[in-house]
This record gives sequence, structure tokens and C-alpha cells, in this order.
Amino acid sequence: MSTPFIGKREYFPGIGRIPYEGRESDNPLSFKHYDAGKKLGDKTMAEHLRFAVCYWHTFCNTGNDPFGPGTRDYLWNRSADTPLARAEDKLDAAFEFFTKLGVPYYCFHDNDIAPDAEDVVAYEKNLKHMVALAGERQQATGLKLLWGTANLFTHPRYMNGAATNPDFAVVARAAVQVKAALEATVELGGANYVFWGGREGYATLHNTDTRRELEHFARFLATARDYGRSIGFKGNFLIEPKPMEPMKHQYDFDASTVVGFLKQHGLDRDFKLNVEANHATLAGHTFEHDLQMASDHGLLGSIDGNRGNPQNGWDTDQFPSDLYDTVGAMMVVLRQGGLAPGGVNFDAKLRRESTDGEDLFLAHIGGMDSFARGLEVAYALQTQSPWERWRAERYASFDEGPGRDFAQGKTDLAALRDLAAGHGEPIQTSGKQERYENLINQYLAR
Amino acid sequence: MSTPFIGKREYFPGIGRIPYEGRESDNPLSFKHYDAGKKLGDKTMAEHLRFAVCYWHTFCNTGNDPFGPGTRDYLWNRSADTPLARAEDKLDAAFEFFTKLGVPYYCFHDNDIAPDAEDVVAYEKNLKHMVALAGERQQATGLKLLWGTANLFTHPRYMNGAATNPDFAVVARAAVQVKAALEATVELGGANYVFWGGREGYATLHNTDTRRELEHFARFLATARDYGRSIGFKGNFLIEPKPMEPMKHQYDFDASTVVGFLKQHGLDRDFKLNVEANHATLAGHTFEHDLQMASDHGLLGSIDGNRGNPQNGWDTDQFPSDLYDTVGAMMVVLRQGGLAPGGVNFDAKLRRESTDGEDLFLAHIGGMDSFARGLEVAYALQTQSPWERWRAERYASFDEGPGRDFAQGKTDLAALRDLAAGHGEPIQTSGKQERYENLINQYLAR
Amino acid sequence: MSTPFIGKREYFPGIGRIPYEGRESDNPLSFKHYDAGKKLGDKTMAEHLRFAVCYWHTFCNTGNDPFGPGTRDYLWNRSADTPLARAEDKLDAAFEFFTKLGVPYYCFHDNDIAPDAEDVVAYEKNLKHMVALAGERQQATGLKLLWGTANLFTHPRYMNGAATNPDFAVVARAAVQVKAALEATVELGGANYVFWGGREGYATLHNTDTRRELEHFARFLATARDYGRSIGFKGNFLIEPKPMEPMKHQYDFDASTVVGFLKQHGLDRDFKLNVEANHATLAGHTFEHDLQMASDHGLLGSIDGNRGNPQNGWDTDQFPSDLYDTVGAMMVVLRQGGLAPGGVNFDAKLRRESTDGEDLFLAHIGGMDSFARGLEVAYALQTQSPWERWRAERYASFDEGPGRDFAQGKTDLAALRDLAAGHGEPIQTSGKQERYENLINQYLAR
Amino acid sequence: MSTPFIGKREYFPGIGRIPYEGRESDNPLSFKHYDAGKKLGDKTMAEHLRFAVCYWHTFCNTGNDPFGPGTRDYLWNRSADTPLARAEDKLDAAFEFFTKLGVPYYCFHDNDIAPDAEDVVAYEKNLKHMVALAGERQQATGLKLLWGTANLFTHPRYMNGAATNPDFAVVARAAVQVKAALEATVELGGANYVFWGGREGYATLHNTDTRRELEHFARFLATARDYGRSIGFKGNFLIEPKPMEPMKHQYDFDASTVVGFLKQHGLDRDFKLNVEANHATLAGHTFEHDLQMASDHGLLGSIDGNRGNPQNGWDTDQFPSDLYDTVGAMMVVLRQGGLAPGGVNFDAKLRRESTDGEDLFLAHIGGMDSFARGLEVAYALQTQSPWERWRAERYASFDEGPGRDFAQGKTDLAALRDLAAGHGEPIQTSGKQERYENLINQYLAR
Ligand SMILES: [Co+2]
Ligand SMILES: [Co+2]
Ligand SMILES: [Co+2]
Ligand SMILES: [Co+2]
Ligand SMILES: [Co+2]
Ligand SMILES: [Co+2]
Ligand SMILES: [Co+2]
Ligand SMILES: [Co+2]
Repeated sequence: MSTPFIGKREYFPGIGRIPYEGRESDNPLSFKHYDAGKKLGDKTMAEHLRFAVCYWHTFCNTGNDPFGPGTRDYLWNRSADTPLARAEDKLDAAFEFFTKLGVPYYCFHDNDIAPDAEDVVAYEKNLKHMVALAGERQQATGLKLLWGTANLFTHPRYMNGAATNPDFAVVARAAVQVKAALEATVELGGANYVFWGGREGYATLHNTDTRRELEHFARFLATARDYGRSIGFKGNFLIEPKPMEPMKHQYDFDASTVVGFLKQHGLDRDFKLNVEANHATLAGHTFEHDLQMASDHGLLGSIDGNRGNPQNGWDTDQFPSDLYDTVGAMMVVLRQGGLAPGGVNFDAKLRRESTDGEDLFLAHIGGMDSFARGLEVAYALQTQSPWERWRAERYASFDEGPGRDFAQGKTDLAALRDLAAGHGEPIQTSGKQERYENLINQYLAR
Repeated sequence: MSTPFIGKREYFPGIGRIPYEGRESDNPLSFKHYDAGKKLGDKTMAEHLRFAVCYWHTFCNTGNDPFGPGTRDYLWNRSADTPLARAEDKLDAAFEFFTKLGVPYYCFHDNDIAPDAEDVVAYEKNLKHMVALAGERQQATGLKLLWGTANLFTHPRYMNGAATNPDFAVVARAAVQVKAALEATVELGGANYVFWGGREGYATLHNTDTRRELEHFARFLATARDYGRSIGFKGNFLIEPKPMEPMKHQYDFDASTVVGFLKQHGLDRDFKLNVEANHATLAGHTFEHDLQMASDHGLLGSIDGNRGNPQNGWDTDQFPSDLYDTVGAMMVVLRQGGLAPGGVNFDAKLRRESTDGEDLFLAHIGGMDSFARGLEVAYALQTQSPWERWRAERYASFDEGPGRDFAQGKTDLAALRDLAAGHGEPIQTSGKQERYENLINQYLAR
Repeated sequence: MSTPFIGKREYFPGIGRIPYEGRESDNPLSFKHYDAGKKLGDKTMAEHLRFAVCYWHTFCNTGNDPFGPGTRDYLWNRSADTPLARAEDKLDAAFEFFTKLGVPYYCFHDNDIAPDAEDVVAYEKNLKHMVALAGERQQATGLKLLWGTANLFTHPRYMNGAATNPDFAVVARAAVQVKAALEATVELGGANYVFWGGREGYATLHNTDTRRELEHFARFLATARDYGRSIGFKGNFLIEPKPMEPMKHQYDFDASTVVGFLKQHGLDRDFKLNVEANHATLAGHTFEHDLQMASDHGLLGSIDGNRGNPQNGWDTDQFPSDLYDTVGAMMVVLRQGGLAPGGVNFDAKLRRESTDGEDLFLAHIGGMDSFARGLEVAYALQTQSPWERWRAERYASFDEGPGRDFAQGKTDLAALRDLAAGHGEPIQTSGKQERYENLINQYLAR
Repeated sequence: MSTPFIGKREYFPGIGRIPYEGRESDNPLSFKHYDAGKKLGDKTMAEHLRFAVCYWHTFCNTGNDPFGPGTRDYLWNRSADTPLARAEDKLDAAFEFFTKLGVPYYCFHDNDIAPDAEDVVAYEKNLKHMVALAGERQQATGLKLLWGTANLFTHPRYMNGAATNPDFAVVARAAVQVKAALEATVELGGANYVFWGGREGYATLHNTDTRRELEHFARFLATARDYGRSIGFKGNFLIEPKPMEPMKHQYDFDASTVVGFLKQHGLDRDFKLNVEANHATLAGHTFEHDLQMASDHGLLGSIDGNRGNPQNGWDTDQFPSDLYDTVGAMMVVLRQGGLAPGGVNFDAKLRRESTDGEDLFLAHIGGMDSFARGLEVAYALQTQSPWERWRAERYASFDEGPGRDFAQGKTDLAALRDLAAGHGEPIQTSGKQERYENLINQYLAR
């Protein structure tokens, strides 16, 4: 267990490296399930899960909501005089947190780590400065960048969209940030580059030509892809679906919509999906469903691990704590052989009312343990229980004979009709949903 | 105005041909807006709207819901002794209704017009008998078939899906019905053939291999398409999206999902979409949104006109009565130059509590007037108001110069960045949503 | 462990009394957590949970949904020639099931156990006959009736409501069934009598005078209460809230609405609430929330244990399987000192696709184990963890001094203002939601 | 038509007093339906509708959302050097807007019109200063205050609630603002005083004692009521229900919940409800439903006129533009004989993308015309159409004979049973929902 990074000052005094203590421990500042080096199959927990802390919610967000400002008075936000000096302090706090928590990765938007500026050159200079410093910190600590991205939704200029803005001048301005964020990602060895289409959508259909906007969107993504490849980016580009909020409707509605869009525009060779739990549920799906839809097409690239509030219709970005969600997620991930080069990023924020210094740690510990426990249970279900055999047997009739012929496209409709006419009524087969549900609970208690 | 068809007996005595009387009429059994021969542009209202009555809700459904049986005691369900004789009576009632209402089209499932049978040959025989009779009635009245389809969800054998059933024997049995329904549609000159994926989806992901099921689905559709073309079907095949119910999740979730699926499997040359209002809203969209998504890809084929109950999370299939919905729908339809060979089918049912004989007429009159009024207002907005000019002007920066270059894929990311750096901050442009909303209300009052 | 009841024939051959085998057992037909005699505090698990099987979903429902008929071909539905003989067979099957499963209670509607009839005298005679037989079976097996009720929603006469029907003739007809069901409940020693307001609500506000309907509702309940008391019923009357379905809106929307209604009409001395999980979630609440709202007013009388499908907007009545739900429920129940004379009734039905004979057992075993595990975890959280102390400390400022004065109504607004002016800004206190969430997961793994 | 108020400078140059021009006008800056002096029955439109502009959304809100800051750069926010001077400028802008628009009322929170301060005395001084100035402006223009309120949700101290905060110190601090806002309301002759329970609820049940919090809530309201009456406030206190946001759950969930709470605590003699459309829909109701529930109990006091976005699960506070909503609302208001001393306050905000100076006017014009048109149609339906007669006839069986006896509580259950047994099966009566729906559309086109 390495020594935590401490910068010019210590931002989380009294908290050291979070240890694994096992499920019987009553120490809130320890892991109960996440034992980084523990092996499940041929991978360690750390290799399976590839956890990342996000910069925005954890170090920038202080708890504001539509009805009030932030509630957390972080030292790094007021310790220095200039925006750039505060950004440097925040970077120190971040690396202290990463190393005390013991995660291998982090993620950021351009404007999370560097002060924004309307002047293009000033913006680029700020970002380059902070990226150089972040590179040094990575060097010193071994932390790695899971993905970088550009914030194309906060500045008022993007109110009508960025790549899909009806005004070409805004589209071009968005390119400034994407170019810079791509360069930053490459410089820091980022494994992926993400597009979350914050305002790519519409506030009202009345004033919107969706056909043109979606074509512009595809153009923009292709242009970014080409530039990324030209400067040596070898990782995955990722689209993060979200159905709405801040816009009434967002084009990257859900996994299936994005898969269709990528295939239509020939982008599916370079782009995969970064599936967020809370965005899946806002789209009317389970987290597992959207993961499965992406995975079925070989396009599940990475995960934003969080959860929504089932009674609230907005993106609450709570820390993952529901084991049914994490078991379901890891069932999909294990079946596709892992997430790499993606990972599990905590796009999750403290509740506005969680204002203690330790709360940032408690929340991440809870999230990491939830995924670690989900991994253990999913792994046990797939390797020790009859689950996978049950599933396979349901489809056995397509593994040979006329069923296989049909699946391979070798049968016509009249032949199918004749097959059916030659047999009696098909035999009824129970779906046995309750049996599967019981099995999950059984393994959750082991 | 033609004479209504009356069969062996009159099922709706006291009600004659429904006349157009205009908006000042207080006669509930008259049209206030639907004036079939009135021209808007180069088409009559009848040509714009191509109304169809559906067989299932209007003549088969008697009002059952999950908590109780039907409430309407229709004469045609008890006047004869055998299932086939009752089917003949129902056909008479249907054509009497069509002709009294004055719609040009109708739609059916195989099992709506003919008695079902588990025995394949008996099933086929029943259907052929009734199709022959329906052909005679069409001949006699001038009615036409907007589309036919097969019911692949009612019989218990389909409980785990039809084309996506894990058991090949059920897939083959589904082919029996699709083959027969295709033949029926061709024989009756049907303009379209519809697939509504009633149980094509899952009750639980636990037991489901979605990848295999979706591949089987595509195979099945291709097989049906090939057979249809081989027997001379020239119309559109249509997929009707629905996100859930009866299944927890249905594969044809919404328009965008289906568009992606069709394109992925090369089915988009033969298949288009039949968009239903209530299904769009269950998927978290407006009716207009799903119409627009289909239309943007040239894949809006037909409409199931109804509405959901915004406070209820199931498919209420109410008659369309919200003019905002119908104005929005007709905005999309007019922009794409019409719906033909599709139409507006009322996949709508009486409320369970609406038990008077006249209620079937009142409901259809309300639905037809709602769409007729929506057509009038949409036509006026597009031809007399500044609406379309406003929308076009928003995108003018892509009509020429570097914006057009970008839209045509001629610009790279670095060039976009330089363009932005060379200009100042983009000028803010109001989205003016409220202006559009005011304009709709203004035209609704004219 | 008593011997199962077997009637004229055995309906579940090959399945005996379900044993408790503990969490390491792989036998699907055993309890992993429900150990009836195990003590937590001064009560056994059986005394804490007071499980009941419901008659309607388990023995009457065969799997129909709005898109298809039942899928399960139960022997007791076809073994005899007359409705009454089939009802007798069903009763035998039910008592065989109760005793094999090992539950102490059951629940029914009048029309579940006896054939309905439009003729009042015939209806009463059928019910009396079956009640006498059920009494014998109770005697023979030790089973008890948790509650009885009348089905006031299935017959078409109730399409516009029962007690709230706009037609007095229907209100009077509803009284026939409530009178008979009350008598049946008293005869069988039922501990409670339930009203679920199936169609007490509206399909549309347009035609509804809600003020009159709600007054009639209160009158009807008072009348039933008076009659029940007059024939010796000593138990609780229970209202079961549900927000919608089958009606667009139901008057017993949620726990708070019903509490307010009962208090307004002076019914809260005799009536409590029977809270169903799926109904709470349809109303936009968690299960635990509606339990808490009822319990806060001393009005939580009984529980309908099931769960909804978070992605589906109708009452799916699935068997409870989410441990977060059952932990939350038992937290409330333990705090109020138990449920008696209420209990946990499984108002839950097999999925339509679950068609094996054993599935009825698997589903109930899963439900019982989920509540038993929830009980264990809630009990441990309340007795071994700091949970209850944490909660109490949050409110300590109201336990003494000016805070207590305020809570007791002894302080006026000006005094409060002066207290605040005399102190500085209140000290910030973290809500620590994540700490609580971590603790639940910690105890779920013990 | 009076002359608009212009302060030190004109904030909306180029826009004068908005005239009524009728439905054929194409002038976007004119009313199409709102003709203040037009009489419907014995009241003018202005008297029926009692429109108010809200201070917060219209003059304080600049368009921020959770993903970005404000987009509108209002002159009054940057024209002066100190917070108090800017507050004075804003007041001038507000009265210019009120008088150009031609509304008789406005509404505010304490912190809308005066700068907030943590120091109690400074806060009180700021408010007194601005209230004095507002009084002068009212004098000069004839504007009146529909209601005042205190903002108990923005400052971080209220993160865990105000009156329901677990810390008594915060409850006392909330009293500072309520006392001051009550005094301000009295000084300005406000007709009502509103409580919107912004953070009165919970983020998680885990840490919350709802019973204690609700008792504190009742105490606090009683204390405020007593103080208000002691300083001469004669108007209604109003509770504004909202089910969630910012909290997961808010105690004032919906109209029925609040009615029950007020009655339980004996607050219903002084408190009524201020029903907001968007809050009703977030609670799973129609706007009309929540109005009706309040009105049925004589507790509908005032209206916050806006609308939500049916596809989005948060409070969008859009300007009212759906005529079905406004017709439904005015049906309830007309039936109860009007809203006075309440009114229709536009708790509605411009879309973030609506950034033109004229947009504030367009939005309010649209909202006022929507309610004016709703009033016209509802008035015509009630006075010229058969609507009210149809509704009354449905309940005629309770107007005399045994039905009336039942409604008056003079019948027991056995007597009801005997009445039913003495008659045959009740006669079926159609609910005729479609007939009512057709009638609304018919009147919307007149
Ligand atoms: Co999110
Ligand atoms: Co995310
Ligand atoms: Co439908
Ligand atoms: Co349809
Ligand atoms: Co239920
Ligand atoms: Co229930
Ligand atoms: Co609001
Ligand atoms: Co409001």
C-alpha cells in the first residue's frame, strides 16, 4: 500500500490510506469488500473494476442545486488568490484524495482542472499549464487518466447546443475545447475520450430541425475522431447516453439509440458507449439493460457508476449502493470479458446535506464496496451456480437442426409454416423468473 | 355521400351516415371539422388523413380490463351459434359502422376477423373463409384495407415471445400466422403489413439472451419480407414501436431504436414505422417526437392515432382528443409530403364505462375531428404564419460559407478551432420557444 | 412441523412441507432465512411476520393479462362439473398449499372462495356454503384468516365505482357483498376486514362530482363499520391505498391521503391502513415511506407484501425480492412494536410465464425469505448498530430547553426571532446519508 | 389604460402598454383574449383572473440550471454598485414591467426584493428599506401585493429543512425571516401570505424522524399564524403543495395531503392552498385534480399558473400554454365562485434559451391569454352547454328517497342489502367520457 500524496498542505488531515478490513469490520473508513489484490479468476479486483474518481463532482461541486448554492466550503477553493492558483491547490487535493482512497484512475473535463476563459488563447494556455502539472502528479503517484472530456454545456454560449447548435459559430467554438481536451488526454496518456451530449438535443421541437442537427452531430464526431487519431490517440472514443436534462430531449437518449446512430454514420469502429446508471433509469431502463444493449453490439466501453433516486425524475447522481444494480452490471461485464480499456468511474456526488470532510471518503468507500460485492456475487453466480447453464438451455433449440438453420437464415417462411404444421402445439416452458430472483438473494447472503 | 352498408340486420339502428355540419353545430353525431372533400393545398382532407377504423378495439373489445370483464354486450357476439357465424355477423356490423362513419380504410389482425384454432389447417381455413367474405364487402362498399397483421401475443404459446421465443417450435408456429396474414393482406389489396412486437421483449433480463433474440427477430422479419414479396405484396412492411406492456421491456422500444435496428439489419428498404401516440408517450417521448425521428430517416410509414393518459403508466389507447398532439403530428406529416400509402388508424378503444350504442360513433367522430382540426391548424401555420421561415432562419449559417463546408464534411477540427479563434464570442440568439407556443394558440382560436 | 393437509386428491404431488435449511442450502424448495421458531427479541420470526397467502392470485389467477388469457391450467379449475364443486376443489388445493408452505394465515375476497351470482340470495347461499367448509378446514389445520374482503370491482355493475357510484342502486348492491363478507369474516374468526377501493375513483373528472362521491364513501364505510361491530367483529377495518388502476385516479391515493380522509370523517378509531408495496411505488413513494406515514399516525395495520417493476407503470404485484424494501419495511414495523393483529400478506402473483407446478412454491419461498432476511437485518441494525442512536441525536435540540418549549407550543414567533438574533449563524450539521447507506450494505453481508 | 411607470431609466425601451387587439391580430405584443374589462357574468376578466407577476422568476432568475449559469444579462443587475442600489433598480424595472403588461398584482419572497444578510439586524434593515420603497411604487401605480413569502430554502443553513430542521437553532433562524416577511406583507397590504415548503421534507428516510418533523411543522405554522393575526393580517395563509425537488420527498406532497394535515392540526380555519400546476403534475395528478381536491374542502385559495413538461421529471415552471389545463382550472374556479382574495400568479420562468428583451413580455402575454381563453371556454361550457346538467343528472338518485337517506347517514347496511335484494340488477349507465371530451374541443373552436 503506497504512501498518499500530500501537496503543499494536507486537505484531508486525520484520514490515511483506506485499508481493506473485511465484512466484519465496524470501521467506517475501511473497505468491507474491495480488496484490490484479491483474485477472481485470472484478474484481481482492481483489474476487474478499474475504478476512477471524477474531478467535477468530487472537487468542483460544492453542493449547489436549483434552489440554493453550495454547502461545502472546501479549503482548496479559497486558499489562493487567483483562479490558476486555486486550480493548482485543487489538483493537490485531488491527488491526495486519489491516493488515500486507493483508486488507479481519474477523469476530468477541461474546465474542471483549468480555469475557463472566453478568449481562446487564454483558455488553451490555462489548460496546458494544468495538464503539465497533472502529468507531474501522475508521474509521482502512478495515477492514470481513465478519460478526458470537454465541458460543452456550462458556458451560456452552448445554451442551444454545441455540435448541434443552430449557429455554426458556436459549433466552431466547441471545436476549440474538443481539440484542446483531446490534446490534454493524449498528453496525459488517457485511455479513453468521452462525449456527453449535455445540450445536444432540444428544448422544444417547435424551433428545431432535428435532421440537420443530427447530421451536424455526426460530422462533428467524425472530425474529432480524425483529429484525435492524427495526434496519436489510440483509445476508444465514448458516447455517454442520457435522455434528457438539461434539455427536454437529448439525442443520445439511451444505449440503443446511440448504437443505431453510431452504426448509421460509420462511427462504430472508433466509438463505444460509456453507460451511466442514472441515465439509463431516466430513459426508462434498468442500468443492466443499457449495459446489455451496448455489450450485445460489442460497444460497451466504460461505466459511469452511480444511481438515481427511483422517486425523483432528475439525475441525482447518487453513489452506487444498490447491490442488485452492481450484481447486474457485473454479470454483463464478466460475460463480455471485462471493461478494459474502460473502467468504473464514479460520476456520483455527495448529497447536498453531506458536509463533513469524511463524507467524500464514506461515499466513495460505499460505492467501491458496492461494485466489489457485486463483482463477487456475479462471479459466484456465473462460476458456482446453475445460472449460466439455465440461460443457455433455454435457447438449445437453436443450437442444431432446423432451429440453427433458421438462425443462420437458411429457412423460408413457408418451410417454417410446414414445420409447425407437422408438429403439434409447442410444449409450454416456464420462464422461471422467481427461481433466478431467489438465487441472487441466496448468493447475496453468502 | 354513399348509402351505408346494412347486412342481415342493422346493428346501429337510428344512426345514419355521419354528416359534416361545421363548428357551430350542436349535433353530437356530426363532424365539426372533418369535411372529407375540403381541399387544403392539392389534397382533400380525406386524402391527407386516410382514416382507418381498427377491428380489434371497435368490434372485438367489449371493455375488459385487468380487474374485470367486458361491459358492452354487442349483438354480433351473441346473435349466432358458431364462432364462424358470429365472425360473419361481426363483419356485417363492421362494414355497417365503416360506411355510416364514412372512413375509407380499416385494419385487422388475423384473429380479429376469423376464429383462431390451434390446429394449423383449421386456422388457415377459418381465415380464408372470412377473407373471402371481407373481399366481397370491400367490393360492395369501396372500403379498403390500410393494413393487415397477425396476432402473435394473445395465445399462451407466445407468452415468452413469438419471433424472439427461446423455443424454435414457437417461432415456427408464429410463421403459420404471419404467412396466412400476409396472404390475406395481399388478397384484400392491403396497402401495408404491420408487425407490432407484442411479446417480443423480455419479462426479466435474468433468463434472456437479448443478442440471440434480436438476431432471430431480424431473421424472422427478413423471412416474412421475402415471402410477402414473393406473393406480390408491394406495400410497406411496418414496425410499430412500443416500449413495454405486456412485457417489461419490448425490443421495438421507440422510433429511434427501431430505425437503428432496421438499418443495422438492412431492413430499411422494405420496412417503415407505424408510430402510435400512446406508445411514444410510454417511451418518454411526445407523439410528435417519435413521428419526427421516423420522418427524419424517411421511415414514417403510418400512424396509430390515439392518446395515453399522462397520469397512467399503461397503454390506455384513448381516442385522440388533444389538439396539440394532432397539430404536432400533422406538422410532421405535411412536411414530409403526406402519409400515403399509410394513414391514420384509430388504435383507440372506448373507455370501459362508455357503454351506449352511440358511444362508438361519438368517440370516432371526436378522433376524426381532432385530426382534421390538427390538419387545418398545421396547414395554416405552415402556409400563412412565419413558423417555417423562423425555423429555417435559425440554421442559415449552415447554408453557405464555412458552415456549409462543415455540414458537407469538408472541414477539420483544427480549422474549426482557427475559425473560432479568429472571431469573438458567438452572438447570443434567443430560442424563442414562447413565441412559437403563442402562435399555436393564436391559430387554434381562428 | 405439522403434516400437510391433503383433500380428495393431492394437487402438488412431489412437494412436501417446505423445510428451513439455512443460507448455505442449494435446495430451491427450502427456506434459507425463514426459520419460523427462531427468536428475535421476545418474538419468533413467525410472530413478527405473520405471513398470509392470498387466495386470489395464488388459486384464482391463471396468468391472464390485457393481451392474453391465463397460461396455467390448474387441476382444481377443471376437475369438477359445477362452479360450487370447483370451488370446493380449489379450497382443498389452497389448504394443501398453505400447510405445505407453512404459513399461519390466509386472506380472501368473497368471490375468490365462492361462485358469484347476480341473484342476491344465490350469492349469499354460495358464500355461506363455502365459508362453512373453510371453517372446517381451518379447524383441521390450525390455519387462520388474516382478513376477509368483498370484491367490488370485477362485476360490470361496478364499472363506475361501488360505494362511490353515481347511481344509488349500485351502492346498495355493494352493501349486499360487504354485509356477506363481514359475516363470513366474523364466522371464520378473521383478524381484520379490508377495503381496497378498486373502482372508487374516476375515469375522468369531466363527469365526476368528487365532493359527493367522497362523502358517500365515508358514509358507506361508517355503515359497514357499524354493521361489523353489531355482529361482533372486534378486529381492525383496513383501507388499502392505491393511486390508480383500474381507474385513472383512485380516492385512496396513498397513505397520507387515506390518513387525512379517515381523520376528517372520524373513522380513525376503527380503520387502519393495509399498505401495499406496489401501490406505494405507483403513488410516487417508497414502500417504506407509506408504511412510515401510516405508522406515524398509529394507523399502520397490515402489509400487502409484493413489489412493482420500477420500469413499468402498472401494478405488477411481483413477489417481494428486494432486500432493501424488506429491511426498510421491517425498520418501521419493529419501531412500532409489531404488526399484530395485522400481518404480511403476499398480494403477489406469479409472472405469466411461470407455469411450472413448483413455481407457486418457489415464489412464496422467495417472498418469505426476503421478509425474514429483512427482519434479521433490521433487527440487527436497531439492536447492534449505532443507527437508532444516530437518528435520535439529530433531534436532541428538541429534547430540552427552548427547543422543547417550541415543540410543546410554548414559544411565539417573536421569541423565536429573538433567540436566533441572540446567537450567531447555526452550526452546519451533515445529514450523512451515505453513512447510513453503507451500514445497510454492511449488515446485508453479515 | 394607465401610463406605464418608468423609474430612473427605462428597462424595456420600445415596448409600451400591451394592448388587447383580439384573436385576429398578428401583433405578438398584444393580447388576443385577455380583455381586462370584458364582463363574463357579473365580473370582468380582470376580476375573475386577478393576475400577478412573480418577482423571483421574472426579475431575479437569469436562466441558470444545474448545468450552467444564467444566460440573461439584465441591466438592473449591473447598473449599480451596491446590492441595495441594485435592488432599487430591480424594483424600478419590476414596476415598469407590471404597468406595461397591465397586471394588477405581484408576489415576492423577502430575498427577492431585498439583499439577504446572515446578520439578523442587517437582514431586517434591508427588507424594511425595500418594503418602504415598494410601498411608494404601489402608491404611484395602483399595483397591489397578491402575496408575500419568506425564502427558507436558498441559504445553506436550510439544507436540512427550515421549520422541520432537526436542529432547533435553524427553526429559530427561519422565524426571523417569517416574522419579517409577515410584517412586510402587512405593510404592503398583501392579500395573502404563502408557505412553500422548499426543503420541508427529507433527502433520505434513513436519518429522518418524520413524526417529529411534521409536528414541528404544525407548531411553526401555528406560531406564524398567531403572529400574523397579532399584527393585523386578515388575509389567508396559504400552503403551496409540492411533492419533491429539491428534497427527495416534501411533506406538502399534494392537495389531499395538505388538506389532511391542516385539518389534523386545526389549521384549516386560517390556511388554504396555493395550487401550482407543475407541482400537481409532479405529484402524479392533473392540475385540475389538485384544484378540485382543494376546492372540495373549501380550501382552494390561490393558483400558481404555469405548466410542467410532461416528459421531464422536474419542475420546469413553464408559462401556461395548454388550453386544456386552463379550461379545467377555470371550471373549478368558476364553480367555487372565484378565487378572491387569491389570484393567478405566474410562477413561471422563461426558458433558459429565451434571451431577448421582449421574451419576458411574450411569455406573460401567452400565459395571460391562455388563462383568459380558458376562462371564456369554461364560462361558455357552464352557461351555454349541457355540461353542468349532465353532471348533475348522474347523481340524481341521491337527491331524494332512499339515496338521499343514505347520503344523510340515515340507512344501515342491512337496509341497503334489502333494498338491493328487492330490486333486480342495477341498470347500466354509460360514463360518456368521449362526449365530454368532444364538447371541450367544440367550444375551443368557437
Ligand atoms: Co448523471
Ligand atoms: Co456520467
Ligand atoms: Co396502444
Ligand atoms: Co397500435
Ligand atoms: Co397490487
Ligand atoms: Co393489495
Ligand atoms: Co414550480
Ligand atoms: Co409555485
